[in-house]
Amino acid sequence: MPDGLGPALRTPLVDRLALVGMGLIGSSLARVCRRKGIARKIIAADLSPEVCARVRELGLADEVAESAPAAVAQADLVILCAPVGAMEAIARKVGPHLRAGAILSDVGSVKSAIIAAVAPHLPEHVRFVPAHPVAGTEMSGPDAGFASLFLDRWAILTPPPGTDPAAVSTVVDFWAAAGSHVEVMAPAHHDLVLAITSHVPHLIAYNIVGTAADLEEVTQSEVIKFSAGGFRDFTRIAASDPTMWRDIFLANKEAVLEMLGRFTEDLTALQRMIRRGEGDGLFDLFTRTRRIRRGIIEQGQETAAPDFGRGRADPAD
Amino acid sequence: MPDGLGPALRTPLVDRLALVGMGLIGSSLARVCRRKGIARKIIAADLSPEVCARVRELGLADEVAESAPAAVAQADLVILCAPVGAMEAIARKVGPHLRAGAILSDVGSVKSAIIAAVAPHLPEHVRFVPAHPVAGTEMSGPDAGFASLFLDRWAILTPPPGTDPAAVSTVVDFWAAAGSHVEVMAPAHHDLVLAITSHVPHLIAYNIVGTAADLEEVTQSEVIKFSAGGFRDFTRIAASDPTMWRDIFLANKEAVLEMLGRFTEDLTALQRMIRRGEGDGLFDLFTRTRRIRRGIIEQGQETAAPDFGRGRADPAD
Repeated sequence: MPDGLGPALRTPLVDRLALVGMGLIGSSLARVCRRKGIARKIIAADLSPEVCARVRELGLADEVAESAPAAVAQADLVILCAPVGAMEAIARKVGPHLRAGAILSDVGSVKSAIIAAVAPHLPEHVRFVPAHPVAGTEMSGPDAGFASLFLDRWAILTPPPGTDPAAVSTVVDFWAAAGSHVEVMAPAHHDLVLAITSHVPHLIAYNIVGTAADLEEVTQSEVIKFSAGGFRDFTRIAASDPTMWRDIFLANKEAVLEMLGRFTEDLTALQRMIRRGEGDGLFDLFTRTRRIRRGIIEQGQETAAPDFGRGRADPAD
Repeated sequence: MPDGLGPALRTPLVDRLALVGMGLIGSSLARVCRRKGIARKIIAADLSPEVCARVRELGLADEVAESAPAAVAQADLVILCAPVGAMEAIARKVGPHLRAGAILSDVGSVKSAIIAAVAPHLPEHVRFVPAHPVAGTEMSGPDAGFASLFLDRWAILTPPPGTDPAAVSTVVDFWAAAGSHVEVMAPAHHDLVLAITSHVPHLIAYNIVGTAADLEEVTQSEVIKFSAGGFRDFTRIAASDPTMWRDIFLANKEAVLEMLGRFTEDLTALQRMIRRGEGDGLFDLFTRTRRIRRGIIEQGQETAAPDFGRGRADPAD
């Protein structure tokens, strides 16, 4: 079956690509770069010896470097694929080893905090193009990656004012070659948009799963049995990597608290409608929300299959 | 491909089955009863002439009755498959026409309120066994139904004290034949369990989709584009039938407000952790919540495929 990624490029976009961090995102990037011929040479690095060993076994890279500095020392394009909270330490370590003219990018889910943490450690001669591919699954690690993870998803670039346009253009081309649509915006706006489309949704999913787990009147066994009533949908994103998500909430505190405030206000209004038995207000909201999903499906960001097409992929069926 | 429902029964469990309401649930019941030979004759009724015409076109029933009273007048087992708020009016209309010894059941998502609304309209000689199959999709109407909707899902029965055990046993067998596991519990406990596993999850999904739609700083187009960061998961259940859900919140007010109170308390604690930068508390919760999903997958209530197996069923791939 075709993977939707189309033919490989005639010539690589990048000569030597270094991926620092080989989890879900780094390993998916390695796979799509290999599949599409985006880089002539892929050099991988990871703090964990187990991950490095697995990357070697899976043959995901042309070289697994001894260390992050060793990986970046030879690269034209370096992409940091690590949790937000690890970015500063990595930048401090690799900064002095970056080549003149190299482009440094990242895949972090928060942009203002990463720019503040990373930029001070970069030499003048390095071009920094922060990026965020809005794609992922609830799985982690090098085995969880796949080449089409970024296909038809959006990659957001947030280059600081004055960034070399040629470097931005290379990173745009890189993500387009991986199958993504690309948008450029200011870091602060990115952080606000992602707070509502990703961070607060994760927070409330984690929260309701925690609430359900802590009840005394309803057992965990009952929560599990009867989860098909809606609850199970939330457990998917509440199964995402804990380190990654802790870092996101700490690094995007302001925007998350702002959007969470809006969510809570609206929820309080809904609660009041229920208490007062205001059916019309509920019905109006429930009708409006249907349209948003239709838009998401029409724009190719969601499957049109009922129930996410869940049944069809379920080995239990 | 086998549908997982196994061979048909040797002899029907029910002679004449009346389904009042032919939306997602009623039409799925018609399909599985046909497929498994659960009833000798299936009689369908629906308030909407369009739905009745469609049921005829699809050949889902042996007979489409003129009215709900005409449908129930000949039935041994009657199942009301209508929104919670419509149950009282239906019971009032069909009550006088029910046969002596007939069993009346329903599929409503709230049980105490339905018992209070329906029971007073039933003659002494009718046996009432309230039920709730915990299954569904975000789609509505007779075209959305399918025979395996109830397969491996749970059906909860809430017979009032003193209900004829033979009638309970017939309804247990009915749902087992449709592929479900069956549990019997008190109506009030059902309403509390479903408040946390279904009603509050729907409420917060509707709420965050509403919040996102109303923002001024982030456009709807941005919400749609970048929804793959987590938001799109919530839009599925926020696309469910507005009438059905309005009725549920009004009919299960007390339990929903109670569980919503717990959710909000917990969310306030999380908000405080973020504001204070308490990463350890966040990390602990995010680790605990992973386990619940594992339980749900192990118990066959969820697919183990990453991202709900979404990609594989996506026609865009």
